[in-house]
Amino acid sequence: MLYFENDYCEGAHPAILQKLVETNFEKVSGYGTDPYCASAREKIRAACGAPDADVWFISGGTQSNAIVIASMLRRWEGVLAASTGHVAAHEAGAIEFTGHKVIGLPHTNGKLDAGTVEDWCRTFYADGNMDHLVFPGMVYISHPSEYGTLYTKAELEALSAVCHKYHMPLFMDGARLGYGLAAEGTDVTLADVARLTDVFYIGGTKVGALCGEAVVFPHGAPAHFMTMVKQQGALLAKGRLLGIQFDVLFTDDLYQTISKNAIETAAVLKKGLAEKGYSFFMDSPTNQVFIVLSNEQLAALEGKAKFGFWEKYDDTHTVVRIATSWATRMEEVEQLLELM
Amino acid sequence: MLYFENDYCEGAHPAILQKLVETNFEKVSGYGTDPYCASAREKIRAACGAPDADVWFISGGTQSNAIVIASMLRRWEGVLAASTGHVAAHEAGAIEFTGHKVIGLPHTNGKLDAGTVEDWCRTFYADGNMDHLVFPGMVYISHPSEYGTLYTKAELEALSAVCHKYHMPLFMDGARLGYGLAAEGTDVTLADVARLTDVFYIGGTKVGALCGEAVVFPHGAPAHFMTMVKQQGALLAKGRLLGIQFDVLFTDDLYQTISKNAIETAAVLKKGLAEKGYSFFMDSPTNQVFIVLSNEQLAALEGKAKFGFWEKYDDTHTVVRIATSWATRMEEVEQLLELM
Amino acid sequence: MLYFENDYCEGAHPAILQKLVETNFEKVSGYGTDPYCASAREKIRAACGAPDADVWFISGGTQSNAIVIASMLRRWEGVLAASTGHVAAHEAGAIEFTGHKVIGLPHTNGKLDAGTVEDWCRTFYADGNMDHLVFPGMVYISHPSEYGTLYTKAELEALSAVCHKYHMPLFMDGARLGYGLAAEGTDVTLADVARLTDVFYIGGTKVGALCGEAVVFPHGAPAHFMTMVKQQGALLAKGRLLGIQFDVLFTDDLYQTISKNAIETAAVLKKGLAEKGYSFFMDSPTNQVFIVLSNEQLAALEGKAKFGFWEKYDDTHTVVRIATSWATRMEEVEQLLELM
Amino acid sequence: MLYFENDYCEGAHPAILQKLVETNFEKVSGYGTDPYCASAREKIRAACGAPDADVWFISGGTQSNAIVIASMLRRWEGVLAASTGHVAAHEAGAIEFTGHKVIGLPHTNGKLDAGTVEDWCRTFYADGNMDHLVFPGMVYISHPSEYGTLYTKAELEALSAVCHKYHMPLFMDGARLGYGLAAEGTDVTLADVARLTDVFYIGGTKVGALCGEAVVFPHGAPAHFMTMVKQQGALLAKGRLLGIQFDVLFTDDLYQTISKNAIETAAVLKKGLAEKGYSFFMDSPTNQVFIVLSNEQLAALEGKAKFGFWEKYDDTHTVVRIATSWATRMEEVEQLLELM
Repeated sequence: MLYFENDYCEGAHPAILQKLVETNFEKVSGYGTDPYCASAREKIRAACGAPDADVWFISGGTQSNAIVIASMLRRWEGVLAASTGHVAAHEAGAIEFTGHKVIGLPHTNGKLDAGTVEDWCRTFYADGNMDHLVFPGMVYISHPSEYGTLYTKAELEALSAVCHKYHMPLFMDGARLGYGLAAEGTDVTLADVARLTDVFYIGGTKVGALCGEAVVFPHGAPAHFMTMVKQQGALLAKGRLLGIQFDVLFTDDLYQTISKNAIETAAVLKKGLAEKGYSFFMDSPTNQVFIVLSNEQLAALEGKAKFGFWEKYDDTHTVVRIATSWATRMEEVEQLLELM
Repeated sequence: MLYFENDYCEGAHPAILQKLVETNFEKVSGYGTDPYCASAREKIRAACGAPDADVWFISGGTQSNAIVIASMLRRWEGVLAASTGHVAAHEAGAIEFTGHKVIGLPHTNGKLDAGTVEDWCRTFYADGNMDHLVFPGMVYISHPSEYGTLYTKAELEALSAVCHKYHMPLFMDGARLGYGLAAEGTDVTLADVARLTDVFYIGGTKVGALCGEAVVFPHGAPAHFMTMVKQQGALLAKGRLLGIQFDVLFTDDLYQTISKNAIETAAVLKKGLAEKGYSFFMDSPTNQVFIVLSNEQLAALEGKAKFGFWEKYDDTHTVVRIATSWATRMEEVEQLLELM
Repeated sequence: MLYFENDYCEGAHPAILQKLVETNFEKVSGYGTDPYCASAREKIRAACGAPDADVWFISGGTQSNAIVIASMLRRWEGVLAASTGHVAAHEAGAIEFTGHKVIGLPHTNGKLDAGTVEDWCRTFYADGNMDHLVFPGMVYISHPSEYGTLYTKAELEALSAVCHKYHMPLFMDGARLGYGLAAEGTDVTLADVARLTDVFYIGGTKVGALCGEAVVFPHGAPAHFMTMVKQQGALLAKGRLLGIQFDVLFTDDLYQTISKNAIETAAVLKKGLAEKGYSFFMDSPTNQVFIVLSNEQLAALEGKAKFGFWEKYDDTHTVVRIATSWATRMEEVEQLLELM
Repeated sequence: MLYFENDYCEGAHPAILQKLVETNFEKVSGYGTDPYCASAREKIRAACGAPDADVWFISGGTQSNAIVIASMLRRWEGVLAASTGHVAAHEAGAIEFTGHKVIGLPHTNGKLDAGTVEDWCRTFYADGNMDHLVFPGMVYISHPSEYGTLYTKAELEALSAVCHKYHMPLFMDGARLGYGLAAEGTDVTLADVARLTDVFYIGGTKVGALCGEAVVFPHGAPAHFMTMVKQQGALLAKGRLLGIQFDVLFTDDLYQTISKNAIETAAVLKKGLAEKGYSFFMDSPTNQVFIVLSNEQLAALEGKAKFGFWEKYDDTHTVVRIATSWATRMEEVEQLLELM
């Protein structure tokens, strides 16, 4: 069985496991106050070109989204997001559970346009009844988006500008940020992300770690952030587990190097599928490939290759997602292409 | 520096790391649906003598407490706990954040007495205004308690009985359950815990794992528990990380064996301290030893041994906690005794 | 100044004030346990043809919506509503504040179609990842809708059927229910509402009362509803204030009679506006009339008549709402028509 | 039947009803923006000697408590209160429902001592683990307390000082404030309350109104308070209902005058009971009288006089509360004394 269902089906990059083994019996303090967390923070600040950044390690993506949003919004505010955004669609109401509305806006291939945000805010602030409404308190984007698409630097600058104009922090969900930064043709660097957002995270779970996301506040975290992390149940006693992983990932450009692999294997896959005449649901420059299969094609692959079901296309076709990762071997891609 | 500050200062039992390495490139499904989680569940059910139990893996203790309590209480209910209970005192309001009151009751050395619970409930249900009050919906205990003390089987039976009488689930926080089960003189087995509670967890973070607690519902979990775990941000994409760890811990009695080490080293420590005339703040049969030090004694140890500060005893004395763990080596204890 | 801004600009029907005066020094028990609440409940049950109904009095509409929804949804559920529904759009996030998502669906003139609900649910339950999503737990409709439109009996039956099929209670916000029931051409009676919904409320604030809505659960309220009302801060000590008002409104068909007045004055108004060539934004059969005015027309009326601003139509036109009520006098309508 | 069960068993002061009748058909704007609310605010500012105060009208006490506390606390904070305080004990968890912990402190006859607060805060800020705890964010007191007792000016000054020292707003629940200000021997004036607290409310429900409390922020309300009131469901469309009532209560010292009546009737009652040898549970200077009755005495009064059950005293005695109010007639007191 060839397994392309998602990008979190393997364990961790071997260098991480090795470091966990090496450091295993060192006794260090808890809750993220250990030297490995400190070192990882320093390396991430350097990689981001953001010497004043606060960096926190959280075990997963939904957790990070809920913590960041609930810690930055005020009581009367909600978060603006593409209606396809993970926080709007796929987190079982985690944001609402903290008391805040996710305000879903129209999207283009999973991306939120600065103009859409500006129009929404202009209408909001022109409404004489605005005190009866949820105020716009933050903008959430994902990069890559849930469809694998990427913002350009110009698009991020425009979003950043509209956010500042309306006094909203811009939050980037970077669950797959490595794959976004490694994509061919992107003009967005990690330093750009740190410069243009108010908070973002560098995804580890889907990019080489066992678990963990590095939440970066380029201009500093909200006051008492640690207590809020604890209150939402996410303060790991053995914070070293996350610190060590990110320390390894940000040593010798490992994060970048392994991200590249997902892009390269996806590129070969896309080229092969195109040559075979498969129809793409959407053009995606990162590690997620969306194609439309007929029900017969789908049936023929059953038991041989595992994909992610995305959505029904029509009565006789289905959209599936094929995901590569930092760990995908080129020979797996070749076997898949042979099969299809 | 001798490090006895807590029982989460080391990494994981080497067998866990080895298994993580061995299984690293196996591709498995996410969110706890992988074969390692399944195997761990099966082994835990067997160890508990609870073939119908539902078992869930959550990354930490506060997280487990908040998820279990918020998933089992109904809107009008709160949780009864010793006023020293972790949920009452040391979780930054994680339970209240989910909308529920923690009703603090008097304790004896960190333990909640069945009679105290019964009296409270009798008074509650005799109150004609009870509809204006928070209803008792659950009882929370920790075993070992925050002071390292243990319930006897008879005490647990009495608590279980009063809980059933008033239709409240009994929830045991077992963050250090291994150390409780391995204590000398205890008559409580894992099967007793499964028989006498409605939900409990087997602590991994403090007993040999990198992270993780195994939440066990002997009679089945609440409906839609997975969605609630997701909603509280605690559903790890790579559920294997927790499954593999508990699979190893419940293979060949490893959990029991390594727990024993903490008890044995603590016993030697206590004997040594008693011989040297140190004064114990409380008699604790597990891996946490509480002694009263004069400020001079404390100062003399600074830079040489690290303890947990517990509380001020009086103007010239301090209560400190010395914790052993699954990883404490007997020679460390000997060095500490020499030093003191 | 002619005042047509809304339907809550006057006080209460004089019969209510008279009854408040007459009963003022009677000493009665608190929190809704007084004889006037009991009598009002009985009369409402009779009017609804629902002898087993539970009836609760809540001081306002947003309050009622938040209490009903938060008491009936389970942790993993959200409420489906038209994207224009009051709970989705105009309550400052009151539902999300209780931890639940409002799932906005497409609407037709403010109404939610049974087919839309069915499609949404079918897609939801076909999604293999549904455990990561917010479950559909309830359907919210308003009748009249926020645009003054009405469901037909057949439409309500279809909604009721799809709700039962997917095990969701159907909740009708009846803030202006009186005006809906009194509209010409409607085939929906109060008994139909009680038969086809699982909970609804009979609006008082906008239909003759000083404040208050009668929340009716035809098949009984959720357990411990009183405690939940208290928990959301809405249990008035002097429950008599609401009981007396609804007792009066449901004596001798007063609620119906005064509702009729709003419809009759609105009918004259609509006829007059049509004759004068005004353009209607939407055809609305109840007490809210939506017309499109040019900016010049709007300016000419300033200081002479007060309407509700609804939304910008285009750069040179605006949609305004003209509302009549139980208290609108026909001569006010005539004066308005003269003016326009 | 003589009715002394509570102080909210009658309607409203007749002057209020008369004003409601007089103004009934005036058309005014909604949500507290009407001229009666404006006038009431102005009169309350004057009575408080607080020209910059923000004044908001909320329909009940639990509602006011929940709104004030939830709008002023930050995510990581809880509210300190006497363990007998209404928010701690009798609001069905309304504060916890908004996500915040009520930290119960020891009390003396329902009162919280500045020293108790200071000690608690000193211990808190000395705790190296404070980031794992709920921070003290506000102090709640009730004046009169739930036992009818009163703070002296010196006690309030001390509380105010400790609150400022630790940067916590001081919040006074004044559900029965009128009775406190009218008590014999008190040295606390309304201006003192406004000077020494950061927010308080002037209770209407129990002091002459149909419903409603006037929440006063001497130094201004939190930003976006109106939206938070709406979000908690408490923004009445017909805000006039509350504005008119407080406008009347603060015209010609009516609030003070009618409060006096409760004190005078209670004084006669206490004197009479003392002469008859009844035993007082607690010395209370306001309108609530707590006496200890034998079960025989209690049985003898059944069906003749209605008191509030307070608590069991011992197996053969019960504590009951006898409450007078603005509406109690002296002859009722005389009849009661005759009966007892």
